[in-house]
Amino acid sequence: MRAYDLILKKRNGQELTKFEIESLINGYMSGNVTDYQMAAFLMAVFFKGMTPAETSELTTAIVNSGEIVDLSGITGRKIDKHSTGGVGDKTTLVLGPLVAAAGVPVAKMSGRGLGHTGGTIDKLDSIKGFNTSLSKEEFIANVNKIKIAIGGQTGNLAPADKKLYALRDVTATVDSLPLIASSIMSKKIAAGADAIVLDVKAGSGAFMKTVNDAVELAKAMVQIGSLVGRETAAVITDMDQPLGNAVGNSMEVTEAINCLKGNGPDDLTELCLTLGSHMVFLGDKAGSPEEARSLLEKILQDGQGLEKLRQLVENQGGDVRFIDEPELMPKADQIVDVKASDNGYVKRIEAEQIGLAAMTLGAGRETKESEIDLSAGIVLTKKIGDKVTAGDTIAVMHTNNREKIAAANQMITEAFVITQEKTDSPKLILGLVTKDKVEVF
Amino acid sequence: MRAYDLILKKRNGQELTKFEIESLINGYMSGNVTDYQMAAFLMAVFFKGMTPAETSELTTAIVNSGEIVDLSGITGRKIDKHSTGGVGDKTTLVLGPLVAAAGVPVAKMSGRGLGHTGGTIDKLDSIKGFNTSLSKEEFIANVNKIKIAIGGQTGNLAPADKKLYALRDVTATVDSLPLIASSIMSKKIAAGADAIVLDVKAGSGAFMKTVNDAVELAKAMVQIGSLVGRETAAVITDMDQPLGNAVGNSMEVTEAINCLKGNGPDDLTELCLTLGSHMVFLGDKAGSPEEARSLLEKILQDGQGLEKLRQLVENQGGDVRFIDEPELMPKADQIVDVKASDNGYVKRIEAEQIGLAAMTLGAGRETKESEIDLSAGIVLTKKIGDKVTAGDTIAVMHTNNREKIAAANQMITEAFVITQEKTDSPKLILGLVTKDKVEVF
Repeated sequence: MRAYDLILKKRNGQELTKFEIESLINGYMSGNVTDYQMAAFLMAVFFKGMTPAETSELTTAIVNSGEIVDLSGITGRKIDKHSTGGVGDKTTLVLGPLVAAAGVPVAKMSGRGLGHTGGTIDKLDSIKGFNTSLSKEEFIANVNKIKIAIGGQTGNLAPADKKLYALRDVTATVDSLPLIASSIMSKKIAAGADAIVLDVKAGSGAFMKTVNDAVELAKAMVQIGSLVGRETAAVITDMDQPLGNAVGNSMEVTEAINCLKGNGPDDLTELCLTLGSHMVFLGDKAGSPEEARSLLEKILQDGQGLEKLRQLVENQGGDVRFIDEPELMPKADQIVDVKASDNGYVKRIEAEQIGLAAMTLGAGRETKESEIDLSAGIVLTKKIGDKVTAGDTIAVMHTNNREKIAAANQMITEAFVITQEKTDSPKLILGLVTKDKVEVF
Repeated sequence: MRAYDLILKKRNGQELTKFEIESLINGYMSGNVTDYQMAAFLMAVFFKGMTPAETSELTTAIVNSGEIVDLSGITGRKIDKHSTGGVGDKTTLVLGPLVAAAGVPVAKMSGRGLGHTGGTIDKLDSIKGFNTSLSKEEFIANVNKIKIAIGGQTGNLAPADKKLYALRDVTATVDSLPLIASSIMSKKIAAGADAIVLDVKAGSGAFMKTVNDAVELAKAMVQIGSLVGRETAAVITDMDQPLGNAVGNSMEVTEAINCLKGNGPDDLTELCLTLGSHMVFLGDKAGSPEEARSLLEKILQDGQGLEKLRQLVENQGGDVRFIDEPELMPKADQIVDVKASDNGYVKRIEAEQIGLAAMTLGAGRETKESEIDLSAGIVLTKKIGDKVTAGDTIAVMHTNNREKIAAANQMITEAFVITQEKTDSPKLILGLVTKDKVEVF
């Protein structure tokens, strides 16, 4: 099996076999397939695509390049969730407790990583004492005991994905549907869950700019899930503005706690109920997503979700007073309003720009070595559809770095697109893709 | 200028500027552009092509990566010739003297290299004493004195082509029209001629299998020539069988000498007159290719071409007795007939197979280290259209390696496609592409 022949076959639009795809990925990891051959192959995939069978074989080969987490010690169907990435996305902190309270085991491994804000593990650092460094045994025991644990990602999961992604990143081959789909799914599959619920973002702030593109990506991922025996459902959601109001680590945790108290922003609450309903349904704790949703609404209303978060914090050594008094969390010493300069209605809020502004204020890491300021970030006080008058506060900046305030202020101002026409609050849930159907709402 | 942006631009089908193409090639040679980025770029070119402007800028950038031969010391318009590669192609040895006799300076730099037989320089080793190691000054003085010199290629011409070709060879990006065209033209342009005549082969034994493909390649090369100010004409010729009868070094030299004596095979003679007529026309020694052809026919008939070869041999230290008595050239001790096993007509002779059989008998180099046996090779005694009866000799093998005879015999037998229907001798000259017109005959 020569790499050359596999490149040629893909270039000529023929379908590669399971064995050929395995050889390619194994050869790439062992060094027998060079970076330049893989780069040529990836560019050929960009132009010729991959069949569903090829995409699932590629995913499997990437999964098999590393460790696969063994969650068999956990009782029940383990359901994982993944978001294609949004600004202000704190759903895990709301969803996890809600779904666990419904009886679905939530074995969540999260990362730190680069980005506008920290990862879930960073966010949880805002709660004093919360320990995410669990051994495999502790992690499993915790899930079996209270249905939920959140730990830092350990083990060498899908190393071929890391190597391929680094190459795609410098060869203009990132935006290929089968490559994106296999990259996301390989990490989820290696993480060991029995079924997966995906939140695929669409809009100006997302990788997929249109609903159609998001649906195509969702279909590819749901298909991979079917072919490898991990049932997958994908919800298409709007990313024309950040999710919720808070962008920044401690303020996102606070918003998540408020959400579980029934006081969350509407969009965050709605998204968590929707994603959660599919998790509970796939976890066999309800006969339909609709039934699952009713169950979750009840769990939210009667405080079982909040109680589950309290159990989680307690179980992992965190200070539960932070649940009742989120104001204990790290606070910035500079709190500065951003004012509207125009009259009109908020038409769009460039999520990417808000994310960059939050990072500028200290909320995220630009490089692996950057220190996160847990107290830094932005709270939006206006969202799409809101009327604004010049001088109104549209957002509040939190930072300990005075020097960054002017730059962040400008970025936030520019991120708000204000027009004269009245605009409705956007629809949040745009579509649903499951193994049985594709719906666009 | 980031390589990433240039890959993306090409991938998205946009046209690169002169500056961008220069940056890419210069960066590749300096190591700032990696092999994997270039591989991705080349695959993007395979799918999206290049405009004529891009192709000529690429050619120029490749030329500028190395030395450019300065032939300004030679009086008159220097015309070079290039063939896209055929089996049994000894045209240089016939054409050179004919065209030089017509007054066009022929400054021919040739290689040894790998292949079915040696290169022109290897072939000339068959003539005792012939010295192809000329200094630049000797080379130019020789051309000025007798209008012709043949020397080994010196200097570092178009090193970017070597580096790019090596990468294309392992990434399935060889067969891209703009990449083939720029590769060929860059070497010819770096070799310093004022105008170029191309012999573009079409057919089963050629890289371009159809006349249409050959015409497209010819058009791309003629266009490059126009854009960089080196007038170029391309003749499309048939390669459904080897050219002439001899395939092997000393026997090809013998055939070339016979051709200049007026006893050459028809196809070889015809090809040399056709290519030569365009060289003489581009060299301003005739008012039209037709007039040039009449001139060359006369030169051939009255022995001026043979006389020019004699001058060339004498001038470069070779033993001129070899011209009158070609039987002085190296002779193999095994001379074995290949017999037809069927009755019928020769429909096709797989040139590639005949070439490989000649290499098996010792005529070519498989690796750089291989020694060439100048006496080894094949003489075809039947060509397309000839009637054969089982037991007829269809070819004669010459070798000093007994052990290879059986294998070569089988390869030659398989190369002859014999059918019951009568077949005509194929048309040799299939088309012509110049800056003014495209003709398919």
